[in-house]
Amino acid sequence: MKLFVRLFVVLVAVGLLAMTVAKPTRIVFFGDSITQAGVKPGGYIDKLKSMLPSDQYELIGAGIGGNKIYDLFLRMDEDVIAQKPDVVVIWVGVNDVWHKATSGTGTDPDKFVRFYEAVVKKLQAANIRVVLCTPAAIGEKTDMTNQQDGDLNQYSQFIRTIAKQYNLPLVDLRKAFLDYNLKNNPENKDRGVLTTDRVHLNDAGNLFVAEQMQKVLTATK
Amino acid sequence: MKLFVRLFVVLVAVGLLAMTVAKPTRIVFFGDSITQAGVKPGGYIDKLKSMLPSDQYELIGAGIGGNKIYDLFLRMDEDVIAQKPDVVVIWVGVNDVWHKATSGTGTDPDKFVRFYEAVVKKLQAANIRVVLCTPAAIGEKTDMTNQQDGDLNQYSQFIRTIAKQYNLPLVDLRKAFLDYNLKNNPENKDRGVLTTDRVHLNDAGNLFVAEQMQKVLTATK
Amino acid sequence: MKLFVRLFVVLVAVGLLAMTVAKPTRIVFFGDSITQAGVKPGGYIDKLKSMLPSDQYELIGAGIGGNKIYDLFLRMDEDVIAQKPDVVVIWVGVNDVWHKATSGTGTDPDKFVRFYEAVVKKLQAANIRVVLCTPAAIGEKTDMTNQQDGDLNQYSQFIRTIAKQYNLPLVDLRKAFLDYNLKNNPENKDRGVLTTDRVHLNDAGNLFVAEQMQKVLTATK
Amino acid sequence: MKLFVRLFVVLVAVGLLAMTVAKPTRIVFFGDSITQAGVKPGGYIDKLKSMLPSDQYELIGAGIGGNKIYDLFLRMDEDVIAQKPDVVVIWVGVNDVWHKATSGTGTDPDKFVRFYEAVVKKLQAANIRVVLCTPAAIGEKTDMTNQQDGDLNQYSQFIRTIAKQYNLPLVDLRKAFLDYNLKNNPENKDRGVLTTDRVHLNDAGNLFVAEQMQKVLTATK
Repeated sequence: MKLFVRLFVVLVAVGLLAMTVAKPTRIVFFGDSITQAGVKPGGYIDKLKSMLPSDQYELIGAGIGGNKIYDLFLRMDEDVIAQKPDVVVIWVGVNDVWHKATSGTGTDPDKFVRFYEAVVKKLQAANIRVVLCTPAAIGEKTDMTNQQDGDLNQYSQFIRTIAKQYNLPLVDLRKAFLDYNLKNNPENKDRGVLTTDRVHLNDAGNLFVAEQMQKVLTATK
Repeated sequence: MKLFVRLFVVLVAVGLLAMTVAKPTRIVFFGDSITQAGVKPGGYIDKLKSMLPSDQYELIGAGIGGNKIYDLFLRMDEDVIAQKPDVVVIWVGVNDVWHKATSGTGTDPDKFVRFYEAVVKKLQAANIRVVLCTPAAIGEKTDMTNQQDGDLNQYSQFIRTIAKQYNLPLVDLRKAFLDYNLKNNPENKDRGVLTTDRVHLNDAGNLFVAEQMQKVLTATK
Repeated sequence: MKLFVRLFVVLVAVGLLAMTVAKPTRIVFFGDSITQAGVKPGGYIDKLKSMLPSDQYELIGAGIGGNKIYDLFLRMDEDVIAQKPDVVVIWVGVNDVWHKATSGTGTDPDKFVRFYEAVVKKLQAANIRVVLCTPAAIGEKTDMTNQQDGDLNQYSQFIRTIAKQYNLPLVDLRKAFLDYNLKNNPENKDRGVLTTDRVHLNDAGNLFVAEQMQKVLTATK
Repeated sequence: MKLFVRLFVVLVAVGLLAMTVAKPTRIVFFGDSITQAGVKPGGYIDKLKSMLPSDQYELIGAGIGGNKIYDLFLRMDEDVIAQKPDVVVIWVGVNDVWHKATSGTGTDPDKFVRFYEAVVKKLQAANIRVVLCTPAAIGEKTDMTNQQDGDLNQYSQFIRTIAKQYNLPLVDLRKAFLDYNLKNNPENKDRGVLTTDRVHLNDAGNLFVAEQMQKVLTATK
């Protein structure tokens, strides 16, 4: 009997251990062209993979160029929820603002909030933990003279408010990029510090974003 | 004989009762500012009420100014499906095109189709018969020099294609307005024929739309 | 002696007369709807009239609603130079930025500078002293979340640069408005502090602009 | 005497020779990226060179990508009048319309006409013969569903009106392209018939434009 009890204890312990080391946390990065590029070698998701223990994290990119918040809404079932992630990192907003100028099809402020909340609620209803990010930059000038600075600040503010309302972790890339540029961009350049073209990440940018995300993701786990 | 007479009387009474309490067809008009104005005295829905037997039709307006297809999508549960209509008439598209120029927040062509189909499918899933309309006009000039003519033709074409694919009745107001203007607008005026301001209906416009809808609705019943 | 005294008296009298009838400085305010409203009772030009000695200054409004820098260029001969002013105050820029969003017809940054310099040079060639102003505001929020803040900052920067290059007096209304709001708009409202509607001046705004202009104009005389 | 006669004969011969080799008609093509590409091998200006006698015509390209009518106005002194042309062919308008959607900096309809007339008048004042062209296409679909069709028709109409008012030769490329496509684009494709990308000319397009211009230019000489 004693032996049997001991064996049972051991088996339970092993089982618990197995459960502990079991399935890694599956994280889907849900966004636009910046995230689409993020899975490439040297991209921010690729860098994150080497910064997080691979037995504990599985990182999946779900970025499509040109996506706005309502694109995420339209494709979230197939591209995100179907993957049964534990965590979804939403990083969107640049195109919602930018497309106002480049194609006349940006997103109304109130509709941005409506769809953003709809995406969050639907993920939460599927028992997925949600991490929010503010859009980083359309231009890196530090004196608030990038054309879309005002609008990008406004949409970032919307996301910060949603993060508070829903009590969600936030990677405030807008603030982080501005702070970084205030220190590292004394010539007030519009690109070349963290971006190649005012929007998409250069090598320093990919590393910087990976670091910002790592902090929040490890705290979120 | 007496029994037979009594039975007959009862049957007739039941029949009349059935006819009397027969639920009228409930139609919700789902759209933008044009439909919002349509329920006012003299508006196209108001005119339709006097053109259709009131015991057979119940007409309800669900128009909100500035609405685009994705606004309809966002509010369809509360504003339309909750009303348990038999028929929904969707009339939208002007703002999806116009807002490109007036606020930079028009709707991408492919996203217009995506949301339009999502609205149709959700209504059909609720066993609601769906009637489509093309956007009538942004400017009444007949020589195809209204600024948005090309884009409005394109979005109308999308709606015609959806009507075919889903086998839905179509009130082709775009075509009807153009045909009407070709006959009745020899001076190539941009307003004042069927609209007050290039978009919203004047008295003739409200009557014209009511007539176009009547034809399709009575055939759809 | 008597003759000498008499002669002296006559000379002094003639001198005083000459001073009395000395032509007042003629100032034309050249701009958009804000300046168009500025000549109305209570408008900033109207207020300036009561703040400057009327025998020394003649103030003329030349504002037209919706004007951008190239509108000023197109109408400067007829509306400004023909009036033979001593000083021209150029206050433009809001529509060059705003119309990008509201009609798709804003002004390219480089073209804004080209036309602005062309206007300045043409006025200087006519021996007119030129005073520049930066565009004040499209929205009074103080946290840089007004949609056009970035672009308006950029165009203001262009004007500051031109002022330096051409050594021209500058009424930096953009900076003045922001400073004023930082002190007097603790609720971060988008209107109602110096404007009625985010752009056009309320009573406090008209007074504030008049004061800012007075300082520079009296120094410029 | 004989010597004198001989001398006379020689002088007359030299004179005739001089007349024969008389200065060729110098034509400047003034426009946007389509004209910038027109001077390349196979471009429409290059093709025109081989279609017109080289001793009678000198063809010069003055196209710059992205140019709108007010860009032409700003650079006409240096780039066109300084070349002392006999004829200037103005071909502009695509960007005045297109930039409304792609950067929010298209040209207002009334301002388009103002600057267009200013360019024409300034060329005429320099004794230069002016030939006008309508903008050909932004999209080749034949059913008036190209996004900018309405606006492009409107601006083409402005140019036709100016041509009439100033009695100037017109190469109506808008009409010519549409007619050509109605015959040769049965599949309603948006590019690939006369353009590579809906706007810029393919080989057939360059030839077609050269032919249309040849007709008018030889008649204009």
